[in-house]
Amino acid sequence: MHIVITGGAGFLGVRLARALLQRDALSLAGAAPRPLTRLTLVDRVAPPAALTQDPRVRVVTGELDALLTPDASGQTRAVPTDSDAVVHLAAAVSGECEADFDLGLRSNLDATRALLQTCRALGTRPLFVFSSSLAVFGHTPEQPMPAIIEDDTLPTPQNSYGTQKYMSELLVADCTRKGFVRGRNVRLMTVSVRPGRPNAAASSFLSGIVREPLAGQRAVCPVAPDTRVALSSPARTIEGLVRALEASDEDWGPRTALNLPALSTTAGDMVAALARVAGPEVAARVDWVADAGIARIVGAWPAGMNARRAARLGLRADASFDDIIRDHLRENPVPPAAAARP
Amino acid sequence: MHIVITGGAGFLGVRLARALLQRDALSLAGAAPRPLTRLTLVDRVAPPAALTQDPRVRVVTGELDALLTPDASGQTRAVPTDSDAVVHLAAAVSGECEADFDLGLRSNLDATRALLQTCRALGTRPLFVFSSSLAVFGHTPEQPMPAIIEDDTLPTPQNSYGTQKYMSELLVADCTRKGFVRGRNVRLMTVSVRPGRPNAAASSFLSGIVREPLAGQRAVCPVAPDTRVALSSPARTIEGLVRALEASDEDWGPRTALNLPALSTTAGDMVAALARVAGPEVAARVDWVADAGIARIVGAWPAGMNARRAARLGLRADASFDDIIRDHLRENPVPPAAAARP
Repeated sequence: MHIVITGGAGFLGVRLARALLQRDALSLAGAAPRPLTRLTLVDRVAPPAALTQDPRVRVVTGELDALLTPDASGQTRAVPTDSDAVVHLAAAVSGECEADFDLGLRSNLDATRALLQTCRALGTRPLFVFSSSLAVFGHTPEQPMPAIIEDDTLPTPQNSYGTQKYMSELLVADCTRKGFVRGRNVRLMTVSVRPGRPNAAASSFLSGIVREPLAGQRAVCPVAPDTRVALSSPARTIEGLVRALEASDEDWGPRTALNLPALSTTAGDMVAALARVAGPEVAARVDWVADAGIARIVGAWPAGMNARRAARLGLRADASFDDIIRDHLRENPVPPAAAARP
Repeated sequence: MHIVITGGAGFLGVRLARALLQRDALSLAGAAPRPLTRLTLVDRVAPPAALTQDPRVRVVTGELDALLTPDASGQTRAVPTDSDAVVHLAAAVSGECEADFDLGLRSNLDATRALLQTCRALGTRPLFVFSSSLAVFGHTPEQPMPAIIEDDTLPTPQNSYGTQKYMSELLVADCTRKGFVRGRNVRLMTVSVRPGRPNAAASSFLSGIVREPLAGQRAVCPVAPDTRVALSSPARTIEGLVRALEASDEDWGPRTALNLPALSTTAGDMVAALARVAGPEVAARVDWVADAGIARIVGAWPAGMNARRAARLGLRADASFDDIIRDHLRENPVPPAAAARP
């Protein structure tokens, strides 16, 4: 079995790759279990060496559109003809898309379309897992939205990233209906706590306000403490993606996107959890400095999900943000020097 | 005031052009009334001579993408820099899009995107009325849909045309949010009775089963008599498009699409109305010959609309299909020879 992951050197891509490589066998779309014999990681940069040392891992680096251009024999570097499944994680993030409308359309909509056309050209109807986002949902004073999102809630995106993700979902669904791919649209929640560095996502602070204080650094929370957010830990998020690869067509259900479960919490409660788990001196490293632009984007997102369809697939939300912080600490131990910092 | 209509030589384009030219003044988006001084009709072919004789009418013929390519001075032929509003009616129809997936994407999604980018480049935030379609809604045994569509019902398109229209709505909404255009998404119902010849739309027969028998010709109804459809007369449809041009931002409401009102009826009731209005010998010219492909597309569309938002704008559905047939006969008198045919 050969699986391709775009964005394979990113945080979720690397984590998904590890999860798949650890498994003895995978039941793609409910089929008989088969071992993963090849895993192609496509990204602009190479994934960590720990991953590339696995003989099953094939690394392809470059711009996605160039990697999707067929050579003289009709092969593309990103999606070889023996690919059984593609997990499309590569994307421009919300902050980038809001700053550069055309970049967002190219990186999110056009790239997804090109990837779908590449899969269609294979003629083998590969599984196609598309990582969409809770950012398809949004509200403003003029555009109401239910506080809790149901499986059939109408998405009314309030930023370009969410718009492009939703447009891509529709294209994946139609390519599935046409028999070009077997598409599965999965809406990821805001992932927290992400390790590493801040990125240009408007939601970046939702990891930063935990990660940086734990590492002895100050962090800015740009939204009000009562701002409610829908979160998922890295572990729960990867569970959702693996389930999208393994669920049978019947269990998966319609071509509309599946909302992953979310923990509904507030920025204030997140920092309170940090105080409980790591101590008040750590939580005191969060500075509350409002940023109207970020507050507008994040404040328009859903506060919670009633993810019934995901629940039927056995997927569940994290129990508490305290648990999420503890998981993060277990996976990312704090250097003693940082912990001791005032 | 300068208004551009793409698809300006088509049935709805010509009819909208006539309606606009007859008005002494138009209140674009609720602004103070101004006379229409120029009307650009963009299409592959020229509109009827009766229209082009009006000195205000400017005809631009060719492929839309070529007409949107700027010249050395940055002007495009389709959308001159003094354009106050664009009504985008040009599209590939449902049957074409289902037969040729790539043509549909180019003609519907890519063309709308290019037109939006052209309007954006003007820097004047023109009004942009996008004609979407009830085909954004669809159901299958696996994908439920409410029998009556509400303003916030989740579209789950079951054909490529509806998918491309819905993707375009989302792009229009985001370009409006970004301040590139003032977009208004209007979902048209199936228009019946269209005069003229059958086209490649899956819904073409919904005009043909009235128009052809009235003209003394036999017509095929490819769906079962109990197939329920949501229809609008040409007159009610044009009313909706004009209202989209004239409503104030406040009256218009959110950037999500407006469902126009529809008369909910069945193929059987349409033919019964034909018998009442024109006589049983005319209705007997309908042959019931099932076509599974057309039945699948049309059978997946909505049976009725609860168009509350449209009602608040003063828009109403046709009262009966009998009235629609009478309107059609008034506008398209039957030649005596055809009427006398057995």
